[in-house]
Amino acid sequence: MAEYIEGKRPVVEALTRKTPIEIVLMADNLKSDSLVETVLRKCRQAGIPVKKVPHKELDEKSERGSHQGVMARTKPYPYVGIGDIVARGQKDFEETGRSLVVVLDHITDAGNLGAIARSAEIVGATGIVIPNKRSAHVTAATYKSSAGAISNLKIAQVANLGSTIDRLKDEGYWVAGASEHASEALWNTNLKGKIVLVMGNEAEGLADRTQKKCDFLVALPQVGEIASLNVAQASTALMYEWLRQNWK
Amino acid sequence: MAEYIEGKRPVVEALTRKTPIEIVLMADNLKSDSLVETVLRKCRQAGIPVKKVPHKELDEKSERGSHQGVMARTKPYPYVGIGDIVARGQKDFEETGRSLVVVLDHITDAGNLGAIARSAEIVGATGIVIPNKRSAHVTAATYKSSAGAISNLKIAQVANLGSTIDRLKDEGYWVAGASEHASEALWNTNLKGKIVLVMGNEAEGLADRTQKKCDFLVALPQVGEIASLNVAQASTALMYEWLRQNWK
Repeated sequence: MAEYIEGKRPVVEALTRKTPIEIVLMADNLKSDSLVETVLRKCRQAGIPVKKVPHKELDEKSERGSHQGVMARTKPYPYVGIGDIVARGQKDFEETGRSLVVVLDHITDAGNLGAIARSAEIVGATGIVIPNKRSAHVTAATYKSSAGAISNLKIAQVANLGSTIDRLKDEGYWVAGASEHASEALWNTNLKGKIVLVMGNEAEGLADRTQKKCDFLVALPQVGEIASLNVAQASTALMYEWLRQNWK
Repeated sequence: MAEYIEGKRPVVEALTRKTPIEIVLMADNLKSDSLVETVLRKCRQAGIPVKKVPHKELDEKSERGSHQGVMARTKPYPYVGIGDIVARGQKDFEETGRSLVVVLDHITDAGNLGAIARSAEIVGATGIVIPNKRSAHVTAATYKSSAGAISNLKIAQVANLGSTIDRLKDEGYWVAGASEHASEALWNTNLKGKIVLVMGNEAEGLADRTQKKCDFLVALPQVGEIASLNVAQASTALMYEWLRQNWK
C-alpha cells in the first residue's frame, strides 16, 4: 500500500533525509512560499516527479488532514525473502565468524522499528525479520528514526514467525528470546556464532508460541525500581552483548 | 522558570503518567467535553488545583498557541547538588562496590535526557550531572521519554562541568569520555568501581575542554556503514557495559 507524507515541512524533511520518494503531489491552487520552493528545488535535484492535482484529490488521499497542499508518496520498501537473509548470514559467518538475525515479534511502533534497525546496522547484523500482519512495517517514520540505516539493512517480512525460526535453526542458528523470565544473567549466556535474537512486542513481550520456539531466554539485569527498558534500548544493549562475545 | 503543557490531550496524558503538576489553568469560557471532564476528574483525584482564567491569559502564556483552553504548569524539577550525588555514590559504592555518575556535556534534546535517565535508573546509576546553561533540562518531554524514571533519579545541575569532574576525581572516580577517538575497544577498558561516564552533545560530541578532563576514552565498536548511534542508545549500551564489568 502506498504511504504518504503530508504537509510542507514534513515533505521537505523527508527529501532532506533522502527518504525514497516516488512522486510529490501538489494542489493546483497552491500558493508558492519558501517551503514550496524548497520542495520543488529538492525534487528537481533528485529527479523526483511533481504532479499538480486538484486540492480535493489530496483531501481524499490524506489520512491526517494536514497536507497543506503537498503530499509525497514513498516508494514501497524493498523487503527481501528469508532466503536472502540466510544467504547473507552464511556469508557473514564465513567472513567474521558471527551472524545476528533480529526477529521482531509484532513490534507495533514504526519508530521503534527504525531505532532497532539503526542499532542492527551499526553492530553489523545480518538482517531483521518482521511478521507481515499486526506489526509495524517500514514507513517514513522508520526512515526517520533509523537515521537512514534502514536503506542499508536487509528486512524480511514473513507470513509465519514460527516456521521462519525453524528454518533459521536448520541453518545452524541458536535462538535467544528476550524475556524477563530468563534465569541467567545475560553475560553468562553464550551468544557466540550464529544467533537469532527474538524481541517481543512493546506491551506484552514475547508471545507464548514464539517463546516456545526459543532455545534459551536472555534478559538484561535491571537494578532500578522502574519496570523496564524501551524495546529499542533493550535491543541495542543485547545486540552489543552479542558483538562483545563475538569480538576478535 | 515555569513550564507549561498545552492542550486538552497533552494535559490528560501528563496527568495519566503522573507528571508532577502544580496547577491546571482553564479558560473561563471553555465548553466542557469528555477530555475536559477527564482533566477535572484526574485533578480532583490527585489533589491538583484547577483555576479558571480569562482565555486571553492562556494566549499570553502559550508558547505554541495550541492550548485549546487548557494548560498545566509543571512543578519545578527538584535538582540536587553535586554533594548529594557524591554522598549517594559513596553509599552505592559501599553497598555494591560500584557507582556510576553520568555527565551530559550539553545534550540539547529533552527527550534524549529522559531516555538516558530511564536507562540510568535501570542500571542503578548514582545520578546524572547536567550543565545549567545551553543544555536540555527536565521538562514534560523528559518525564515522558523517561517513563517516569526521572522522578527516581538524582540529577544535579551545575555551573561548571570541569570543576564538577575534578570534584568527582577527588572522590575516587575514574572519568571515561565517550568518543569515537578511543583507541581501545570498549570491552578492553576497565570500568570497575566508581566511574564517571561523560557523554557528548548530539551534534558535536565531547567539547575539547571536557575531553581533556577525561582519564580515558571509550567507544562502542561500530561495524556498519552508517555514522553513529543516537546518544541515548549509545549511553544505554555503555551503561550496561559498566554494569557487566561490575556484576557479581
